[in-house]
Amino acid sequence: MKKKKVSNKKKNVSTEHVDLGQIGREFVDKVVTISGLLERVVQTPGPTLFAVNDGTGTFMLKGFSGPGERSFPEINESDYIKAKIRVKEYNSLFEGDIMNIEKLSGDNEKRVVGKIKEIMRERSKPEEAEFLIKSKILDKLKDRFIDAATEIKLAVLQSRPIIVRHHNDADGYASGYALEKAIIPLIEKQHGGGKSAWEFYTRAPCSAPFYEIDDSIRDTANSLRNVAKFSNKMPLVIIADNGSSDQDLMAIKQGKIHGMDFIVIDHHFFEKDVISDEVLVHINPFLVKEDGQSFSAGMLCVEFARFISNVDNVEQIAAMAGLADRIDIMNPNDVASYIKLAEKQGYSRELLDDISTVIDFVSAKLRFMEAREYIEILFGEPRKQQKALVALMAPYIRDLEASGLEMAKQGSTVEKAGKTSLQLLDIDGSFPGFGFYPKPGRVVGMLHYFIQKDKKMDSVVTMGVMRTAVTIRATDKANFSVHDLIKELNKKLPEAFVTGGGHKNAGSINFLPSKQEDVMKVVRKFVGK
Amino acid sequence: MKKKKVSNKKKNVSTEHVDLGQIGREFVDKVVTISGLLERVVQTPGPTLFAVNDGTGTFMLKGFSGPGERSFPEINESDYIKAKIRVKEYNSLFEGDIMNIEKLSGDNEKRVVGKIKEIMRERSKPEEAEFLIKSKILDKLKDRFIDAATEIKLAVLQSRPIIVRHHNDADGYASGYALEKAIIPLIEKQHGGGKSAWEFYTRAPCSAPFYEIDDSIRDTANSLRNVAKFSNKMPLVIIADNGSSDQDLMAIKQGKIHGMDFIVIDHHFFEKDVISDEVLVHINPFLVKEDGQSFSAGMLCVEFARFISNVDNVEQIAAMAGLADRIDIMNPNDVASYIKLAEKQGYSRELLDDISTVIDFVSAKLRFMEAREYIEILFGEPRKQQKALVALMAPYIRDLEASGLEMAKQGSTVEKAGKTSLQLLDIDGSFPGFGFYPKPGRVVGMLHYFIQKDKKMDSVVTMGVMRTAVTIRATDKANFSVHDLIKELNKKLPEAFVTGGGHKNAGSINFLPSKQEDVMKVVRKFVGK
Amino acid sequence: MKKKKVSNKKKNVSTEHVDLGQIGREFVDKVVTISGLLERVVQTPGPTLFAVNDGTGTFMLKGFSGPGERSFPEINESDYIKAKIRVKEYNSLFEGDIMNIEKLSGDNEKRVVGKIKEIMRERSKPEEAEFLIKSKILDKLKDRFIDAATEIKLAVLQSRPIIVRHHNDADGYASGYALEKAIIPLIEKQHGGGKSAWEFYTRAPCSAPFYEIDDSIRDTANSLRNVAKFSNKMPLVIIADNGSSDQDLMAIKQGKIHGMDFIVIDHHFFEKDVISDEVLVHINPFLVKEDGQSFSAGMLCVEFARFISNVDNVEQIAAMAGLADRIDIMNPNDVASYIKLAEKQGYSRELLDDISTVIDFVSAKLRFMEAREYIEILFGEPRKQQKALVALMAPYIRDLEASGLEMAKQGSTVEKAGKTSLQLLDIDGSFPGFGFYPKPGRVVGMLHYFIQKDKKMDSVVTMGVMRTAVTIRATDKANFSVHDLIKELNKKLPEAFVTGGGHKNAGSINFLPSKQEDVMKVVRKFVGK
Repeated sequence: MKKKKVSNKKKNVSTEHVDLGQIGREFVDKVVTISGLLERVVQTPGPTLFAVNDGTGTFMLKGFSGPGERSFPEINESDYIKAKIRVKEYNSLFEGDIMNIEKLSGDNEKRVVGKIKEIMRERSKPEEAEFLIKSKILDKLKDRFIDAATEIKLAVLQSRPIIVRHHNDADGYASGYALEKAIIPLIEKQHGGGKSAWEFYTRAPCSAPFYEIDDSIRDTANSLRNVAKFSNKMPLVIIADNGSSDQDLMAIKQGKIHGMDFIVIDHHFFEKDVISDEVLVHINPFLVKEDGQSFSAGMLCVEFARFISNVDNVEQIAAMAGLADRIDIMNPNDVASYIKLAEKQGYSRELLDDISTVIDFVSAKLRFMEAREYIEILFGEPRKQQKALVALMAPYIRDLEASGLEMAKQGSTVEKAGKTSLQLLDIDGSFPGFGFYPKPGRVVGMLHYFIQKDKKMDSVVTMGVMRTAVTIRATDKANFSVHDLIKELNKKLPEAFVTGGGHKNAGSINFLPSKQEDVMKVVRKFVGK
Repeated sequence: MKKKKVSNKKKNVSTEHVDLGQIGREFVDKVVTISGLLERVVQTPGPTLFAVNDGTGTFMLKGFSGPGERSFPEINESDYIKAKIRVKEYNSLFEGDIMNIEKLSGDNEKRVVGKIKEIMRERSKPEEAEFLIKSKILDKLKDRFIDAATEIKLAVLQSRPIIVRHHNDADGYASGYALEKAIIPLIEKQHGGGKSAWEFYTRAPCSAPFYEIDDSIRDTANSLRNVAKFSNKMPLVIIADNGSSDQDLMAIKQGKIHGMDFIVIDHHFFEKDVISDEVLVHINPFLVKEDGQSFSAGMLCVEFARFISNVDNVEQIAAMAGLADRIDIMNPNDVASYIKLAEKQGYSRELLDDISTVIDFVSAKLRFMEAREYIEILFGEPRKQQKALVALMAPYIRDLEASGLEMAKQGSTVEKAGKTSLQLLDIDGSFPGFGFYPKPGRVVGMLHYFIQKDKKMDSVVTMGVMRTAVTIRATDKANFSVHDLIKELNKKLPEAFVTGGGHKNAGSINFLPSKQEDVMKVVRKFVGK
Repeated sequence: MKKKKVSNKKKNVSTEHVDLGQIGREFVDKVVTISGLLERVVQTPGPTLFAVNDGTGTFMLKGFSGPGERSFPEINESDYIKAKIRVKEYNSLFEGDIMNIEKLSGDNEKRVVGKIKEIMRERSKPEEAEFLIKSKILDKLKDRFIDAATEIKLAVLQSRPIIVRHHNDADGYASGYALEKAIIPLIEKQHGGGKSAWEFYTRAPCSAPFYEIDDSIRDTANSLRNVAKFSNKMPLVIIADNGSSDQDLMAIKQGKIHGMDFIVIDHHFFEKDVISDEVLVHINPFLVKEDGQSFSAGMLCVEFARFISNVDNVEQIAAMAGLADRIDIMNPNDVASYIKLAEKQGYSRELLDDISTVIDFVSAKLRFMEAREYIEILFGEPRKQQKALVALMAPYIRDLEASGLEMAKQGSTVEKAGKTSLQLLDIDGSFPGFGFYPKPGRVVGMLHYFIQKDKKMDSVVTMGVMRTAVTIRATDKANFSVHDLIKELNKKLPEAFVTGGGHKNAGSINFLPSKQEDVMKVVRKFVGK
């Protein structure tokens, strides 16, 4: 990169070659040479616009052959170009009138490609972050964090939109929010603020506990539209607290056909890793011989966010996510460390519980709305507002939960299956129908916790039984496994077409409605072993 | 306010202090001083824009330090400021280039605050409206009308968005539309037309018969987004034909946490008034010892609209709303007065019935779409178009209703409960499923009316029975009360978790599906007394 | 039209009368006279904009009386006007500053109207297209194709938005896409590209197998909003693969009340033609004494598209649509001709089947999203991308279908009804619930095909039985008719309120849930005859 002296404001810099990041007011009306990758061509009713990126910045060139007429039709998106331009100021933005422009090839192209790559690689280096807590799991995943952070920073530099899709629970929201906190500032810096945080970033929960083909097709359709309408690029998609199972595979492959790329950061169990080969980076404790029930996705994402950019006000989120996903059962030490950090920030364990309760409630009401600013408040931006909201809502939601638990107690029975108590809740008959809060999964969790505490039972499996599905929670002592149950059902009862997933002690299964009775017979035997 | 002579078009007014409402073409290129409240700061990719309001009008100032750079970072939204500006014309709009600007404090601030308040108070005075009819109920509510109209006008002057949420039936639509007719012209005047009617105003039906926490969270999330993306203010929400019950309380409190304010105008019964303390103004006949079954929300809103601005073409709407809500039963005189007014406008009683039928049908099809312009036509803007639409649709809908009634007759039984006839309709088994019109509530109403007329019965309770709910209509002679039934059920059958509401003679209850049989036993006894 | 010499670039053309299509750069700063129809008046915060169309093109005039003030308030939309303007260039577009403007009347108006009509009629002439295949059905429909193409081209020239609504299956998508391919280029040419393809064109599937009143009200509400907000015109609606039955009638009439016009292109059976009188053009084989089971809507639309504009890359679509709708059963020759055309383009029959499978799957996932660009890929734009997508998805979907068929086999029974085998599938009990693919209709088709092939049966009726509906497929040998069954049910069991429709051998019926058993008794007798 040539160094320039700009001593004389009106000095003629004529055909000097400059970096795009350098161009400022003192260049107005001067003629310079620039080179870089042509990222976008937009035909307006007037001139044709060419967005060039040379790694140091993005700059807009204008060509005009006639109103609405494409100028320089031989120059196309993704070309590497060199241009002689006169710098102008328009609406207080700088841009360049093209005097001539040429597509580079051969060595000239290689030189520019090389220079851009080097600059981008340099600028994409992740933050050198210390972890918030000492943890073997984190240490084993550190290289993947660095790779993934590099990919995300690179995507931002390349003006690629980023889509974050996450599990629709408190841990999933924590994951998505931590990523958002780290990514949006980079986007705003790259594109100069304004509406860029909405144009180049989207976050949304998945409705299923995985990234479904439905999600993938809809994300693809929206992205293709943005390519056609706004000359956007195809996005980088980050799947958080979802994404590691074979149920995510087709969705990821479908997106890749259209030029999307993927990063997965998850802690759910998978039988076999079919995802790593399909994504840029795959992060999951099970990939490094650790257990996902020992580290939640929200905990991972808080740590990971610090590799992407210099985030603050996220320390308490790891603790909240860990508690919401009951990581304290398998990994009390790490959760305790996070709780300590949270307490330093003025978040008691009770407050953390309340926050996760409110997040669960609000997510049930928002469904697929992004609600970025509302979610910010829920996560403590600003903290005063968060606390006021939680102080109002938590007691109200606790009342709803207390009612829900009473309804669940009425609608449930306990039977013996071997040494284990099997608690069965008739979901369809026991709650007032659509829109009721707490949702079945949460009620089953509460009922499961209640029987342990109230009846002093420690070998319990609780099941919320529906027409075509069962939601499951088990204690460690019950020596249960959702994954083994699914295998057993598929062996004994292939005609029930059982599918499902989750963690060893918490998950759900689906089956044909006409087979519900047969399924429950196998389930009873399986629990009794 | 200084008086200015503008005899000489190019006269130098230099640092003269002027009101923003005064600035016109003759000021272009002149330098003046202005002061006021900084309502909005918008950072464009070029200059920074500052919207100032001094009570006489809103005016845009421009500061420029560099492209996309925030100028005057020490000056923030909600500051009271004084600025020396040069008036410019840009795209045929007037605006001011900032020469200097300062945040006011102390006495200078107080003086400006005082002046703005005085101007706004003056400009927010409601229209001195005569009521369309003589009515004791209206007289008792008049002070509340004046307070609420003042708040609405003030919100418009302060560039606050307004959200109207209303009950999803003909009376609710009438309420929302009457408010809309009064509010939109004020907004267009304040913001100079264009797209302002869409930027500063929204109307939408609620799906439940109250303003749910779901509605509140979604309205909040959207409003917070508009604050972040467009520097909007948090809105004033008007809840119409909903809002007076304790089921609305949390939703209102939730909104207030985020800076929303509320006005409620309703006629539904409440056990205890928990709303008045939480809202700017609460309007409901029950608050002044009158009965809500004697004056519908639509009737109230038509009268109230005339306090907000000078509305026309709404006289017939009060009659339509009153008939749709069967106010003629309890208060035949006032409804007759409104019908007389409507007839003068060329609306026969039959036409009013047809209009409310079409509104009910269309609202079932639109669901949550605002459909502002379609709704305008339904309410007679223009009347010719309304009449053509109703002439086409009403006979078609009457046919659907006739079919619905036949289905209902087939699916219903009549039994004796004491001296009262209890007509029970099996909703789930008797209609062809999703999307069917007429909706259950309406069919129950028709069946209830049919048995009275056809079987000459006058002590009747009609119930549409569903898996988790019952919809109820009762005649006066049946001496029934929805509210007392709910109390009785909660006493006798707390395990059914019964909730519900409505009017004394028309409402609904919800319960756990497994308790349907038990609930119906208590219901039968209660009706038989 | 006066011929002009523009030899001298700065020559004074003063009040010469010119055609709008003529105005180019050499007119800048000159004064000319123009005339035409005032299509749109838009009030900006600055000047008033007037869009004039004289048949040769659309041109924007500007009037300015004051910021946001309506200039020439005596001149209104739909007026025929004459104006003296100075041509300007603004943002590299040409426009005219109004020097004076007058509303034409009497003979002057007539002359302009006549001229515009003539030019438009000339420009709206359809392409002189040869059909892709020789077919009696097409020959009989040719005049209707010409009329409909003329109406569509005229709508585009008049800046009318176009809405295409189509059946939600592979044949329906093929119909919609073929029309889209033909219409969008015309719109882009008329409005100079940019975002016009989104502003003046929408396509969406209908959720029911006809154009429901729901669709009509929502299309109307959106269109009225665009009229109010963007000064659009009311649209021309083309209903494809839907629209010919009496169930479409009210929806079409409703739209017409608001100024919408309709074209229907369908191949479904109707008892009596009630549609032709209500639409601009009605195209359906049954109208010319042919059978709709011999020519699908997709086949018709591919042929029709070529009358609208010069489309390419659609030859293979007719074959795909015909196969998807099993037109090969009744009309093997024409389908074979289309398959031959497709094969020339590199589409084997197997690939066509795979494409229609993927379209069916994707349409189930997209539901009401337009997803224009995704659909383009599915239909082969570009072909390489289409083939990659289909190669990925088809095997995955085939697996889902194989599972669905296994579930269906388990959940079905076969009984004898006379000489015919009646195969009954319990839909509600046999599949895992919401979101399951394949959808009931498709599963019934697969099961119907399976029994013929596997059990060598050729007189079969297959029925998917639900709580309030039955989906039906019949072989020719079964001598069945959906339409006759509906008549029989309405005669024998009027209290079941049976409705329904479709083709003779494939359709569905709806009824009251409490009458399911009675309905099935009549059905059994009817099948056994």
